[in-house]
Amino acid sequence: MQTLSQLPVYRDRHLTLLTDLYQLTMMYGQFCAGRHEERVVFDLFYRQNPCGNGYVIAAGLEQAAWYLSHLHFTDEDLAYLRSLQMFSEAFLDHLKDFRFSGDLYAVPEGTVVFPNEPIIRVEGPVLEVQLIESAILSFVNHQSLIATKARRIVEAAETNFRRPGSPVIEMGLRRAQNIDASVFGARAAFIGGCVATSNVMAAESYNLPVVGTQAHSWIQSFSSELESFRGYADAFPDDTVLLVDTYDVLRSGVPNAIIVGKELAAKGHQLKGIRIDSGDLAYLSKRARQMLDAAGLTETAIVASSDLDEYTIRDLVTQGAEIDTWGVGTHLITSSECPALGCVYKLVAEEVDGRLEPRIKVSENPSKVTNPGKKKLLRLYVEDHAVADLITLWDEVYDPNEELELFDPIHTYKRKVISNYKIEELLIPVFIAGKLVYDLPDIATIQKRVEEQLKYFSSEVLRHLKPHEYHVDLSQQLWDLKQTLLRQWQKS
Amino acid sequence: MQTLSQLPVYRDRHLTLLTDLYQLTMMYGQFCAGRHEERVVFDLFYRQNPCGNGYVIAAGLEQAAWYLSHLHFTDEDLAYLRSLQMFSEAFLDHLKDFRFSGDLYAVPEGTVVFPNEPIIRVEGPVLEVQLIESAILSFVNHQSLIATKARRIVEAAETNFRRPGSPVIEMGLRRAQNIDASVFGARAAFIGGCVATSNVMAAESYNLPVVGTQAHSWIQSFSSELESFRGYADAFPDDTVLLVDTYDVLRSGVPNAIIVGKELAAKGHQLKGIRIDSGDLAYLSKRARQMLDAAGLTETAIVASSDLDEYTIRDLVTQGAEIDTWGVGTHLITSSECPALGCVYKLVAEEVDGRLEPRIKVSENPSKVTNPGKKKLLRLYVEDHAVADLITLWDEVYDPNEELELFDPIHTYKRKVISNYKIEELLIPVFIAGKLVYDLPDIATIQKRVEEQLKYFSSEVLRHLKPHEYHVDLSQQLWDLKQTLLRQWQKS
Repeated sequence: MQTLSQLPVYRDRHLTLLTDLYQLTMMYGQFCAGRHEERVVFDLFYRQNPCGNGYVIAAGLEQAAWYLSHLHFTDEDLAYLRSLQMFSEAFLDHLKDFRFSGDLYAVPEGTVVFPNEPIIRVEGPVLEVQLIESAILSFVNHQSLIATKARRIVEAAETNFRRPGSPVIEMGLRRAQNIDASVFGARAAFIGGCVATSNVMAAESYNLPVVGTQAHSWIQSFSSELESFRGYADAFPDDTVLLVDTYDVLRSGVPNAIIVGKELAAKGHQLKGIRIDSGDLAYLSKRARQMLDAAGLTETAIVASSDLDEYTIRDLVTQGAEIDTWGVGTHLITSSECPALGCVYKLVAEEVDGRLEPRIKVSENPSKVTNPGKKKLLRLYVEDHAVADLITLWDEVYDPNEELELFDPIHTYKRKVISNYKIEELLIPVFIAGKLVYDLPDIATIQKRVEEQLKYFSSEVLRHLKPHEYHVDLSQQLWDLKQTLLRQWQKS
Repeated sequence: MQTLSQLPVYRDRHLTLLTDLYQLTMMYGQFCAGRHEERVVFDLFYRQNPCGNGYVIAAGLEQAAWYLSHLHFTDEDLAYLRSLQMFSEAFLDHLKDFRFSGDLYAVPEGTVVFPNEPIIRVEGPVLEVQLIESAILSFVNHQSLIATKARRIVEAAETNFRRPGSPVIEMGLRRAQNIDASVFGARAAFIGGCVATSNVMAAESYNLPVVGTQAHSWIQSFSSELESFRGYADAFPDDTVLLVDTYDVLRSGVPNAIIVGKELAAKGHQLKGIRIDSGDLAYLSKRARQMLDAAGLTETAIVASSDLDEYTIRDLVTQGAEIDTWGVGTHLITSSECPALGCVYKLVAEEVDGRLEPRIKVSENPSKVTNPGKKKLLRLYVEDHAVADLITLWDEVYDPNEELELFDPIHTYKRKVISNYKIEELLIPVFIAGKLVYDLPDIATIQKRVEEQLKYFSSEVLRHLKPHEYHVDLSQQLWDLKQTLLRQWQKS
């Protein structure tokens, strides 16, 4: 964790009190009842995909790992808790030695996940497992949301068959919901497929490519647009992208950019690009492309920005907009269409007399009934195609050479038999007995994992609008256990 | 600033690189051109109210003040910038002594503001005024947005004439867009009128009331709901709010709460409340109130939570829901309906030969044409009623004993003469020559300012849906200047 702690975004931060008060009151209640050492198992999962997407890209584990590794109560924390006059000295004294000593299993960041799947499973003394709920939910909810939104935007840009793979740049700092939202948001955007950020702090923290040119104020601060372009090209002859919409894109901006492009060419440089930040991007980009090409600046790229999201980008692409790079701000960094992912963290098992007993949370709303017990999450592949995910009890063993009958956990008549399948166990050990045992991958590796994962799913599941629902089934044992517990509850 | 720096949320943070790269490239461009000492004036303002509201509550100034007071480039910052291979050593060397030396005027936090009004005005060397844009926008955009959203929610709860002033508690940590969004969001929610937060770190940072009871997992971890309620009441006999919806609100939760309430009463305590977190809150709260009252627990409050926002709260209130306290999470902490406020930061004047010259940003979109020049923002009152805001040039002087003719800056035939009015100058000095000269008020004072300010506005302006547009006018001098600059631009 040495390296992580050096990241500017983490350095010297202390987050132990980043929790909801009810975690502390429950911890105190357990302590008063002498039950604080009891082992419990909690699952972290979400119930509904955001933005109408068919899946979520899991992210935020690195932040959770940093947080768990550094968890401890300082004297100042304890003084504050004492000031609330809610807790006994014995409890506060107990917190002095608090460390996370539990086990945490998680899907690697960049994993494609689906509703109701355990993304993280935590097991340990109830005091510890309770405290961490709020912070870990915030990290995973935020980063998974932005990674997923970024993926949608990147895919919209990639549908541009005329310019395959037009890259997307994250540039939302000024509209982000404060500092961490911008920095961890830029990280998540990169995981989702963005190629760069404008946020210098995020770039430094995560070694991301960082890009940026000039704002309208730069243009305004010169006596003419042409002079402002020349001034910028002087400072960055090999990295000049000129903002052409301060006065009039086609009558002033592009003609002036062409003058500077030719001047740069005469000195052995090349005008890297122009940026259009307002107006009708389809019309303006097509006309600008013609003008640049006619002037011989065929390699000068067109960058577009201006309130873009996946829907606008897809429409512009469909209309043949000549846009090489997309700069996306507000809608990406806030996931404006759906600014929260609803991951929850639920008790699924509890130690009684040395044995883990499954627990279920019942609700009037059937979709809110939890899957009980300590579990595993398996992804089943047939011929390199992900056919279903299977949630099983943690000690179940499957032989992929035997036939396996899968069934829908609600409409159980829907059944399917598979054979010769491959199993990927998605929950991997991250902390064992409080020790970080997982080698946190770098962000490029995580981004690559997303790309590779998505290849295994059918395009129907990956569709942006009304995607096909991927199969997430329960094993027969887990399904039986759930029914048994539900019947017990009905009788009680 | 001593105190501010001690706040847990600020402690030891270093944010100088929290900026968009283009600020640094423009700074470098200015430096290369030898223009980096030129004085400029920038205005921070927004163009459109969020969530269909009629105004915005300005917030985030404290964070901006902390940021500006601590701005400097460390060796590590410079090493990172050097690694980008974009900047000369002379420039990096120049940054070593970088401090904010400018003037900053701002409306106090908690001020009610309107579209196109300068909320912050910054004047200083272009190098400094440029760097700070991205961070300050993020702080002000985020906190103003959440304060405004909170105000809407608090007002919805306050329309409950049967229970006037039912308080709203902020409890969105787990759905916040990462750490700062939760902490500064809780601060902004309090400014908007929330009475407490569940977020311990926010409460410690800003000395906010902090509340919380138990989660479903607490209930599940006991052999019965009744035992779980007793366990909690044992730990907090005078501060017990029981979560009654784990199994069945009316058949199990409320009856068990009544048992514990009577047991507490027998010991001289009082059951503080019950919380309903799912189901139909109108029906359940009314039935629960009847049951509690019938059992003599008339002072036991009903707390409701469950995906609430201002619209749901208002509907529930209209239906006579018996809810005493509202816990609001996702929709408040993300302002889910509209998760970004669009403040911008625009050049309005620039020093040429020792004199400030006004600058205008023209756009094809008339609403995006800026108001040029260094300006003041005046609020005009007639008989304790705010009648209009007037944006003037900074050196204009008005005599409130003389008649003043106001006119709509677009539809100029709409005119109105006022007399015997009072003037409030809204932009006050915060930094002068880089020195913090403003005594930052505490959060309770800011919250109170919101309440007091709103009294001066008509209910039509304060309405949540389709509010009346408050008059924001330009002075004749400013209007004339704008027209002159627009004509000059058309001719050029």
